[in-house]
Amino acid sequence: MEKKFFNRILYGGDYNPNQWPKDIWEEDMRIFKKAGINSATINVFSWAKIQPSEEEYYFEELDEIVEMLSKYKYDIILATSTAALPAWLVKRYPEVARTDYEGRHHKFGQRHNACPNSLVYQKFASKLAGTLAERYGSNPHVTCWHINNEYGGECYCENCEKAFRVWLKKRYKTIEALNQAWNLEFWGHTIYEWDEVVLPNALSEGIGSDKTAFAGISIDYRRFNSDSMLENYKMERDAIRKFDSHTPITTNLMGTYKNLDYFKWAKEMDLISWDNYPSYNTPLSYTAMCHDLMRGLKDGQPFMLMEQTPSQQNWQPYNSLKRPGKMRAQSYQTLAHGADTIQFFQLRRSIGACEKFHGAVIEHVGHENTRVFREVMELGKELQGLGEEILGSTINSKVGIIFDWENYWALEYTSGPNKDLKYVDQIHQYYQYFYNKNIPVDIISVDSDLSKYEVVVAPVLYMMKAGLAERITAFVENGGQFVTTFMSGIVNESDNVYLGGYPGPLREIAGIWVEEIDALAPEQKNGVEFHDGNAYTCQLLCDIIHLEGAETVASYKEDFYGDTPAITKNSFGQGKVWYVGTQVEQAGIAHLFNQVIAETNVKPICSNGEGLEITQRDTADASYYFVINQNTKKQLLPEELIGKLNLLTGEVVNEVVELGQFDVLLLK
Amino acid sequence: MEKKFFNRILYGGDYNPNQWPKDIWEEDMRIFKKAGINSATINVFSWAKIQPSEEEYYFEELDEIVEMLSKYKYDIILATSTAALPAWLVKRYPEVARTDYEGRHHKFGQRHNACPNSLVYQKFASKLAGTLAERYGSNPHVTCWHINNEYGGECYCENCEKAFRVWLKKRYKTIEALNQAWNLEFWGHTIYEWDEVVLPNALSEGIGSDKTAFAGISIDYRRFNSDSMLENYKMERDAIRKFDSHTPITTNLMGTYKNLDYFKWAKEMDLISWDNYPSYNTPLSYTAMCHDLMRGLKDGQPFMLMEQTPSQQNWQPYNSLKRPGKMRAQSYQTLAHGADTIQFFQLRRSIGACEKFHGAVIEHVGHENTRVFREVMELGKELQGLGEEILGSTINSKVGIIFDWENYWALEYTSGPNKDLKYVDQIHQYYQYFYNKNIPVDIISVDSDLSKYEVVVAPVLYMMKAGLAERITAFVENGGQFVTTFMSGIVNESDNVYLGGYPGPLREIAGIWVEEIDALAPEQKNGVEFHDGNAYTCQLLCDIIHLEGAETVASYKEDFYGDTPAITKNSFGQGKVWYVGTQVEQAGIAHLFNQVIAETNVKPICSNGEGLEITQRDTADASYYFVINQNTKKQLLPEELIGKLNLLTGEVVNEVVELGQFDVLLLK
Amino acid sequence: MEKKFFNRILYGGDYNPNQWPKDIWEEDMRIFKKAGINSATINVFSWAKIQPSEEEYYFEELDEIVEMLSKYKYDIILATSTAALPAWLVKRYPEVARTDYEGRHHKFGQRHNACPNSLVYQKFASKLAGTLAERYGSNPHVTCWHINNEYGGECYCENCEKAFRVWLKKRYKTIEALNQAWNLEFWGHTIYEWDEVVLPNALSEGIGSDKTAFAGISIDYRRFNSDSMLENYKMERDAIRKFDSHTPITTNLMGTYKNLDYFKWAKEMDLISWDNYPSYNTPLSYTAMCHDLMRGLKDGQPFMLMEQTPSQQNWQPYNSLKRPGKMRAQSYQTLAHGADTIQFFQLRRSIGACEKFHGAVIEHVGHENTRVFREVMELGKELQGLGEEILGSTINSKVGIIFDWENYWALEYTSGPNKDLKYVDQIHQYYQYFYNKNIPVDIISVDSDLSKYEVVVAPVLYMMKAGLAERITAFVENGGQFVTTFMSGIVNESDNVYLGGYPGPLREIAGIWVEEIDALAPEQKNGVEFHDGNAYTCQLLCDIIHLEGAETVASYKEDFYGDTPAITKNSFGQGKVWYVGTQVEQAGIAHLFNQVIAETNVKPICSNGEGLEITQRDTADASYYFVINQNTKKQLLPEELIGKLNLLTGEVVNEVVELGQFDVLLLK
Repeated sequence: MEKKFFNRILYGGDYNPNQWPKDIWEEDMRIFKKAGINSATINVFSWAKIQPSEEEYYFEELDEIVEMLSKYKYDIILATSTAALPAWLVKRYPEVARTDYEGRHHKFGQRHNACPNSLVYQKFASKLAGTLAERYGSNPHVTCWHINNEYGGECYCENCEKAFRVWLKKRYKTIEALNQAWNLEFWGHTIYEWDEVVLPNALSEGIGSDKTAFAGISIDYRRFNSDSMLENYKMERDAIRKFDSHTPITTNLMGTYKNLDYFKWAKEMDLISWDNYPSYNTPLSYTAMCHDLMRGLKDGQPFMLMEQTPSQQNWQPYNSLKRPGKMRAQSYQTLAHGADTIQFFQLRRSIGACEKFHGAVIEHVGHENTRVFREVMELGKELQGLGEEILGSTINSKVGIIFDWENYWALEYTSGPNKDLKYVDQIHQYYQYFYNKNIPVDIISVDSDLSKYEVVVAPVLYMMKAGLAERITAFVENGGQFVTTFMSGIVNESDNVYLGGYPGPLREIAGIWVEEIDALAPEQKNGVEFHDGNAYTCQLLCDIIHLEGAETVASYKEDFYGDTPAITKNSFGQGKVWYVGTQVEQAGIAHLFNQVIAETNVKPICSNGEGLEITQRDTADASYYFVINQNTKKQLLPEELIGKLNLLTGEVVNEVVELGQFDVLLLK
Repeated sequence: MEKKFFNRILYGGDYNPNQWPKDIWEEDMRIFKKAGINSATINVFSWAKIQPSEEEYYFEELDEIVEMLSKYKYDIILATSTAALPAWLVKRYPEVARTDYEGRHHKFGQRHNACPNSLVYQKFASKLAGTLAERYGSNPHVTCWHINNEYGGECYCENCEKAFRVWLKKRYKTIEALNQAWNLEFWGHTIYEWDEVVLPNALSEGIGSDKTAFAGISIDYRRFNSDSMLENYKMERDAIRKFDSHTPITTNLMGTYKNLDYFKWAKEMDLISWDNYPSYNTPLSYTAMCHDLMRGLKDGQPFMLMEQTPSQQNWQPYNSLKRPGKMRAQSYQTLAHGADTIQFFQLRRSIGACEKFHGAVIEHVGHENTRVFREVMELGKELQGLGEEILGSTINSKVGIIFDWENYWALEYTSGPNKDLKYVDQIHQYYQYFYNKNIPVDIISVDSDLSKYEVVVAPVLYMMKAGLAERITAFVENGGQFVTTFMSGIVNESDNVYLGGYPGPLREIAGIWVEEIDALAPEQKNGVEFHDGNAYTCQLLCDIIHLEGAETVASYKEDFYGDTPAITKNSFGQGKVWYVGTQVEQAGIAHLFNQVIAETNVKPICSNGEGLEITQRDTADASYYFVINQNTKKQLLPEELIGKLNLLTGEVVNEVVELGQFDVLLLK
Repeated sequence: MEKKFFNRILYGGDYNPNQWPKDIWEEDMRIFKKAGINSATINVFSWAKIQPSEEEYYFEELDEIVEMLSKYKYDIILATSTAALPAWLVKRYPEVARTDYEGRHHKFGQRHNACPNSLVYQKFASKLAGTLAERYGSNPHVTCWHINNEYGGECYCENCEKAFRVWLKKRYKTIEALNQAWNLEFWGHTIYEWDEVVLPNALSEGIGSDKTAFAGISIDYRRFNSDSMLENYKMERDAIRKFDSHTPITTNLMGTYKNLDYFKWAKEMDLISWDNYPSYNTPLSYTAMCHDLMRGLKDGQPFMLMEQTPSQQNWQPYNSLKRPGKMRAQSYQTLAHGADTIQFFQLRRSIGACEKFHGAVIEHVGHENTRVFREVMELGKELQGLGEEILGSTINSKVGIIFDWENYWALEYTSGPNKDLKYVDQIHQYYQYFYNKNIPVDIISVDSDLSKYEVVVAPVLYMMKAGLAERITAFVENGGQFVTTFMSGIVNESDNVYLGGYPGPLREIAGIWVEEIDALAPEQKNGVEFHDGNAYTCQLLCDIIHLEGAETVASYKEDFYGDTPAITKNSFGQGKVWYVGTQVEQAGIAHLFNQVIAETNVKPICSNGEGLEITQRDTADASYYFVINQNTKKQLLPEELIGKLNLLTGEVVNEVVELGQFDVLLLK
């Protein structure tokens, strides 16, 4: 199967002309062209339109849209439209709607509303995908299939309950294995038949909206739910492949979205696409981390930005405008972290329903004489000017940070020790160090090849599945620096504790034993002090650590465990294991990691670049440097980068340049 | 049909002697008489008592109550008692109970609990109303019918779902029109049959408890629900009219209560009555605004105060006592804004159930030797002394503020730009200016005759129904001052955006184009500066405005739209349109409106009255001035009012009087 | 029936070896012995294990556990295991699961999940209890039966609804009596048939999650629910007694847990046991109060501590470690207030499910070389050293504080005057005075014999059941000091108000009339000033009081009732009634009570002991003084206690001793 990957930066977005009379369509073509737009995502929520009933399809209007876009040589990202059920389908087959966590079976409404285990849904969705592929797959302008949309949510209906039992039987084989995996002796939950299993929601094991009496059950439910939706995706993919063997297939993901194990999904996707919607106060480093995570899903392969807003969102509590220049800077940040497309939601703004206050390339005013359009157009021209530059280039990094959805679920299901512990926040805290330093980072899975990294960071590696400890051990033996933290090495993949002392399978290589884990309430603080006298506050959790070969890097300042180790390092083989026993403030993390990378070849992309966001993408022939000033304060371009060609202006940068807020240089 | 309107100020309240032995009844008569009480509302929640089963009525006790009150010449406000279902009715016909927003069908309990579209409810409620009218309608002491009680709430049962489809078919005629009105192309919600419509609640289009995926659907549901209850009201009214053609009919409303379109209801009511329950920290201006709104429902016709508490409420979080004098001042405020009655909930305090801590004229102690009673009695004597004075007098104002329930619903359903935008708060902010200045204001509907006003204020006139723009335009052309704000002129009655640039149908007369709407989070502020250098903070939303003929009244102080117009004015015909593009602090609103009214004959009732609440009611022959000091600080009576007769003392005010807190003068 | 009460301090805890292979069991025996552990609670959640299906039992593993523990001479506390339903039982008979407040029938999951009125549950639970008693009752090591576990929660299913009607018919005999008791005239709720009664939940009378339209109904539902579970307890108890007539029977209670009327339960229990789980910021006085309440349930009889954690909990938001020494101090506090056992949850920590982060004697590390174990062991040795000392000794106090569950329910169901009024907080505020002074207190029921006390304190005695006023009056006549507060004497046992003036049945003996009750919002304060000029802030509620024979102890400082009585005292017979009309800050309470006890023989256990917690337990032959320093500040042992024998060291304390934090002396 030969895949058509993109030979230009796709620049465009979601396009839904059905709402408008045809004279508007031609106007759209003119305006898009003016903006340098070269692609459109269509048919995202058109199921009810293109299939008016169980017995008939109606493709005339879609045909017209496809023809028009083809005529103007747009790349078409064709969605399968299965993310919102038609009303007639729910009316005729109520089972296609979901049952929620509260146990309430839903009626028709909203979107992302199909029960993934409904055979009726499966039948109609796969048939639609196949029919679309048959009809449009051979169109050379159809550049990419977009299956469904933002898969997510969960269902607790009877169909899902039955499917869950089948899934479990496949995973555990015997009732005995299931009883043991879920530790069902606890609270007398031992079962004797598969159909004694019920879904874990507010009517069974759920405690409040986000805790559970049996994390083992609830984690398996999340695995099952992620798999169920992945099966939906694969079903549509396979239906498309019957008629179209060569067009890349994707679905748009959502960064750190909790419910789906995106590393597992990525294996089934030709390319990764995602929707980037920072709110007005989202840290820039958080967005960068999400990009790196999305790039990491397929081992560094360039990804698609499927959605961002030209300016305003509608569903945040406070939907600020993007300040002048910010959309451009955000777009280059996206490319800088590995994307090869920039797509907007949406090209023309809807006149009604809940997203009508969401920004668009063409606003309600209907013409192009707007600030937002001008910024879109300026960016479009720049991107056109790049030609095939940067396409397919990749980021090379010596640092990997482990992100694991199953661990994410498991950690946040724990009852105790501290309810404020959040997985993504922990990952982000460590990511920030590298972001601030302009050190490239890969976000990797627990299955990734560690040998290509010099430093691997695994914050709160609470759940350690079989084989992971061995692979980490090998990494360290071979000279790697491995950094982990409190709440690591605690449980196996069934959420049962590794007995024999924390951090379980990491105990030997970390050279420590964690005897106790103290929980601090928000008003409580402790501190850590390094050998050089530098001290930082810490909070949340404090491990009480016994050295078993490791040495102390920093000690607690107070409480009955004052002066005992808070951060340790242990030489093991050719490498070292660093253990951070408490949540240290950001400056303390930096102080620590300066020591960690001092033992390696890990370096910033260039010196004196702090305050700027600088990344590097490489091809076999060239290196591209993205330099962005995201801060209000002016920043100077680092001297190392002087003398390079700025691809955005076509001029060589010959002297020190001052970058104002949102200024961008793309140097070669 | 000749109506008996009241020929004295009705002074009394809710009376429910059924709970008590008969010897208490005679004691009640003695105490009420002592207090100057001349009326009683009875039978409010007696359905289960007067109809013990489907087959029988029991009127003996009600007969006795009516006879006793008639004997003592009380005016009787006779309620139809249909606001709380009898237990037997719910048991036998469970469909009469409501299904809530969560989709849960309720059992027997509470009150205001009938499904408005239950045929069973309709049958029994109308039959009861008719039977009561037949029995008591000819009693000359029955002065007013009080249908049901505080209509409100909503129902999402299957009966309502079916009735909703019928309502829609009547409104839209065709499926195509419905698809377009609700913009059902969005998210692929296109329907093909009427019975694909489902009610918008937590199981369908509802997002959280107060947002929706399709505002068009949810707004129509609110219209439908308001209409359904109004049909219930009309049904009872018509049942009464079969037997009693002359007694005025009302139901008690609740100020700015969101669910019912009171302007539409008012058309079906002979007179407006309402229940006034400010909490301990409700601004006085807010209460005044509610009175003016209630008076406005029937174009200025005097209204009834159906309920207030003599002192304490029970259902607030913190139920403060009314300080000495406060109940009297609050009562005069009510008359001052157009009421002709003062009624208490309740005359004697219940011994059990959830309102037993609600204040009453006769408290649990059972005698009249209480502070609360003495205050009730003093007021009663004053009101008796007024005779027919003030009855039927009206308030004349040159300022109208538009209040529109459909706009209220639509505005608060928007997803974006800023979740903190609340309709009533916006109205209140503008109302406050006039309140503080003692400038009479009418609260008017979008259908009101604008030509009688010099100034019309329409804050956040987000939804503009057909014809409104034309009527506003004519108003301005003819010399009116029209003031509107951000988030105006955005959508039509189906919540679909007016394309072509904000503020849509107001763009031409406002002489501006609003290109973008920035949303500020609570911690963010901007400022506006007037030409004279006065500057004020602003927040919430900031329109970015282009002048198209208008001139700048004030400019933004900061951000990328600093120095661009924030407030504008535009001459159009003989009048002007003022546009306020952001939420300005109250002092800034005052600064603006001082300019607006400078162009008109709008003036305070008298000079130097600020700090006092001063209103004026007129008859053909006389003007009445209500002067109330609601503040702790002493205030002087304005000189203009010296020389008038104080009706409460019978003495002419010959010199400057100092009013202490809660002091009241009623001058003629 | 001869009962085996304990002849040593039981020291041990919950033991659940089923999860572990047998080689661990022997290791447990060794480690427990080392720790001085002499008892184990077993079989708490084993129903599904010991009854694999409706038709069969499986006791082999339990037999082994019992045999092993018996061999090593452990006292066995044998649970009946009925607190968590087997999955097969729920699958086969869904009615055994509960229906929640929202009206949702639950599926299998969690624990404490049986509908108390399910005949199926009753059949299987009682059969299991009987079978266990038959099998193990004659084992001399089975020292105590532990029925079910932490009874609690509530059910709103149809079975409960029917049972509620039967319960009501028994209580009220006639429909008329029920209508009157619940004041069903209000809001027209009059019923005519018993089956018109529905359970009061979110689908009927419930307002939000904790209020109700009809407190009378909701209070009766709580009585019924408490009784229903008590019937479950009695059913199991009676089943055991068929086979075992002599072993004491208990179930573990939970301090001030709201749902169950523990005073009523205590009558059916041979001994009281309870679970003590303070959170990191629970006041020490609160824990002490709970102990005193538990001791009070059976008139001072020594109680069992069934559960505490050796160090960490898991289900708090923030699960701090117990600092070194704290577990020991907390254990002695337990003995100091009347316990004769110390039991831990749990002996070995679970590897999976929601309590795996809950502390244990044997932690996940699996050995005894832990701080927590060492502290457990040290305490174990001390307790072993005590032999039979303190066993059965009792606390003698002259002060009783009334605690009444029905009043607790009624008070917190009130709608108004102030939503922040919480029953337990009020009790605790008064308890604190005595705690701080080391004055022994009994927590007593409304049925307790008052004559043994010199001071009886009854805060917020809102509901006064028949006969109580007479007994309080007699107490005062005979010379008692009776202290009560605002919101006392308001309603009878049906929550109907005592007419004729607050505080109803207490009005005469208090010598006052409370005319009004003002409610203060959180930001509002007033003050009280005593005759000596001492002044304190007050808040929440302020009674407006008329003296009717009483004298003023302190007056309000502000507002329109400034200078009127806030606290009064009235001589009545040989005693006095003190009435506290507002919530005074703690120092003001102390100032008041110093005056109250000045009139009595009530004294601290010894002088100059403040800052230490000092209690006294007596036998016929000896007095034991527990002296604990719970504060970080060092404290000196009061001189009065010098010269006594410290049972923990075996040495006489001959000189002034300084006690550091968590230091404990047990003096004889």
